[in-house]
Amino acid sequence: MIKRIGIIGLGNVGQATVRSIIKYSSLIARRASVKIEIKGLCDVRKAKGKFAAKFSLPFTTDAEQLINDPDIDIIVELIGGNEPAKTFITKALKAGKSVVTANKSLLACSGREIFSLAKKYNKAIGFEASVCGAIPLIKSISEGLVSCQVNKIYGILNGTTNYILYQMAKERIDFSNALREAQGKGFAERNPVLDIEGKDTLHKLCILTYLCFGVWPDPAKVYTEGISNISLLDILYAEELDYHIKLLAVAEKERGKLNLRVHPTFLSEDHPLSETSSAFNAVFLDTEPAGDLLFYGQGAGGAATSSAVISDIVSISLDGKSNLRKEIRVKFRNIDDTASRYYIRFMAQDKPGVLARISRILASFNISIASVSQKERGRKKTVPIIMITHDVKERDMKKALAKIDALPEIKYPSQKIRIEDL
Amino acid sequence: MIKRIGIIGLGNVGQATVRSIIKYSSLIARRASVKIEIKGLCDVRKAKGKFAAKFSLPFTTDAEQLINDPDIDIIVELIGGNEPAKTFITKALKAGKSVVTANKSLLACSGREIFSLAKKYNKAIGFEASVCGAIPLIKSISEGLVSCQVNKIYGILNGTTNYILYQMAKERIDFSNALREAQGKGFAERNPVLDIEGKDTLHKLCILTYLCFGVWPDPAKVYTEGISNISLLDILYAEELDYHIKLLAVAEKERGKLNLRVHPTFLSEDHPLSETSSAFNAVFLDTEPAGDLLFYGQGAGGAATSSAVISDIVSISLDGKSNLRKEIRVKFRNIDDTASRYYIRFMAQDKPGVLARISRILASFNISIASVSQKERGRKKTVPIIMITHDVKERDMKKALAKIDALPEIKYPSQKIRIEDL
Repeated sequence: MIKRIGIIGLGNVGQATVRSIIKYSSLIARRASVKIEIKGLCDVRKAKGKFAAKFSLPFTTDAEQLINDPDIDIIVELIGGNEPAKTFITKALKAGKSVVTANKSLLACSGREIFSLAKKYNKAIGFEASVCGAIPLIKSISEGLVSCQVNKIYGILNGTTNYILYQMAKERIDFSNALREAQGKGFAERNPVLDIEGKDTLHKLCILTYLCFGVWPDPAKVYTEGISNISLLDILYAEELDYHIKLLAVAEKERGKLNLRVHPTFLSEDHPLSETSSAFNAVFLDTEPAGDLLFYGQGAGGAATSSAVISDIVSISLDGKSNLRKEIRVKFRNIDDTASRYYIRFMAQDKPGVLARISRILASFNISIASVSQKERGRKKTVPIIMITHDVKERDMKKALAKIDALPEIKYPSQKIRIEDL
Repeated sequence: MIKRIGIIGLGNVGQATVRSIIKYSSLIARRASVKIEIKGLCDVRKAKGKFAAKFSLPFTTDAEQLINDPDIDIIVELIGGNEPAKTFITKALKAGKSVVTANKSLLACSGREIFSLAKKYNKAIGFEASVCGAIPLIKSISEGLVSCQVNKIYGILNGTTNYILYQMAKERIDFSNALREAQGKGFAERNPVLDIEGKDTLHKLCILTYLCFGVWPDPAKVYTEGISNISLLDILYAEELDYHIKLLAVAEKERGKLNLRVHPTFLSEDHPLSETSSAFNAVFLDTEPAGDLLFYGQGAGGAATSSAVISDIVSISLDGKSNLRKEIRVKFRNIDDTASRYYIRFMAQDKPGVLARISRILASFNISIASVSQKERGRKKTVPIIMITHDVKERDMKKALAKIDALPEIKYPSQKIRIEDL
């Protein structure tokens, strides 16, 4: 079977997809009896024409040329961002073409709309590359676990932030140095805000929520906290307590409500997720009846992600199905109503009575302390006080910390990081 | 879409499959628009009729009744073992029915024949449940990684042996006690030979080899070593050296030859595979361009495995494709030609000159020692001598150990365990 595609967007993933299709064409043909024919490449940057020329492939700066080409069966959208990607995908579906996309931001923001459109035109949307790059996670969940009820998702979904936290711990460097290093190595963009502030993780969590729980959440309403606030100090204290700090995406069903959140988290060093090193991604699923599952692999990088793009092209060629799920109604839990154990760090003046004042405020909010340690007592004027709490409601923790941070003896905003006991 | 199935074999997996199909039917219908209708159950054990009656399902002790029922689209074979499973599957294919099976032994021994038959009759064989139970590994490899070249597979494919090794390490108990405990908890069969001696792992490795490298190996020719020979001593020494001992299935392509083997292995405790705890399974793949991937989950258990069986039923309902791959020609490497680092343990009389004699023999086979330690020197008459070697050819190691074991000062057969530096 011959399948003709047009690729829009010749960045890392776009170029790698072209290379992989050419390099592995006989492998793909032998395994799946599909021959992928690249009918055209498109990028608004004229200079990318050189790349196309290297492979003697037609090139255009006008995406509509590919979208309206009757010889093309599948449009592969690899430009990212909401617009013009959304317009291109919409037009492609209307023109009777299936779509493969790696665009997590677009799906998180407009997934419901795009999937309805695909359904209306009876076309497929492949989006394996949108979450966890090379890991065949979308297929595993939507087909492999088709009969499974998912209870919990815990994901390390962003390679950049995992690399930064990993390097901070490994090299004993602070956040800004680790970020610079990640940028130098190409693991972080020059404008790293989407990654660092947890937005990219959030987008992927929205897609996984749709797949596992059958509902598209509103990304603007999901509690999202990034890692720019994590200090080397916190990482070192975490280690003393046998934890690693990871930026975690969480989705769990609790008493009928769906609890979604993205935040830095203390994970026990014994849990397989906390072994996720460097720029890798990992997803842990608690399911019935399949039990606990973990998927681990490269979450980004052009070559790795091209594997997911091609898998979608082949699947659509063989099935042509849109593999869409009916959306259901679900209630979401407000972050203020969630409870967890916490690591908290206060930077306090080394004066008598400070610990007593802090403890009194915590007690007034019913916050019970599991352990306390005061670090580096001695000549320094400000000393870190580290506490691990028992389960606390987010709302109470926020109020208590606001009160504590107003004390004259507290010199810097207090740090709080949730502890997940998976 | 309604799909009508007949299930042959009402053991753990068979019963759990019936329960899961009933319990999750609305979930499956919402996600995949497939309704699975159980038309009949079969088991040679008449007493299983009670189970069928509980769900008001037709029951027979004669498999042919289901195989020849024109109302049945898919035969689900869950009896295990080579016969009569092979006969049933063959007849089902000839009768124009697709087949879902969890039967690793049958596929490892007769996969080529059964798959050719499926191709001839244009029917599908689903075998997700045959390797790593609940992990959607077969689908991930055959569809998700369709464009990937696999360089290496490292798998912990048998829950029983992993449980035993894990318990030995955790509880500081010896092999026979751990085996008894595993049997008590239902993690090991009363006749555990298939598991303990590595045969079950071997069968699964054969299936993965077909999927990843496109060739069915002859199981009788694959080097297979079980775990009954692993002593608590070895596990403790491994820990001292920051290793865990795991029963590992290995397939790797080296200079054009495929190297397949199953044996206990020293794995660095830092490698994600070595975190595989209790009765879990895990598979590590080194691929291009998708990079390194790890899959982790429950490898056995009725409920968990039912998820894989149902996923196959749904996939076949939607595609009906056999998803078969053309076999290719591959050369296999003889185990004697493989090289690795080794942990070796000698039980020697505590006499002067023993270490010198051992070292001389090793040197005469060009075996270079990376580290030596002699344990528990003192009152005991026999002391363990532990060595870690540099890379050694299997052939040389065997010859050297045979010579060393013939020394009068050596009281027990020497232990050798390969070290894999993943």
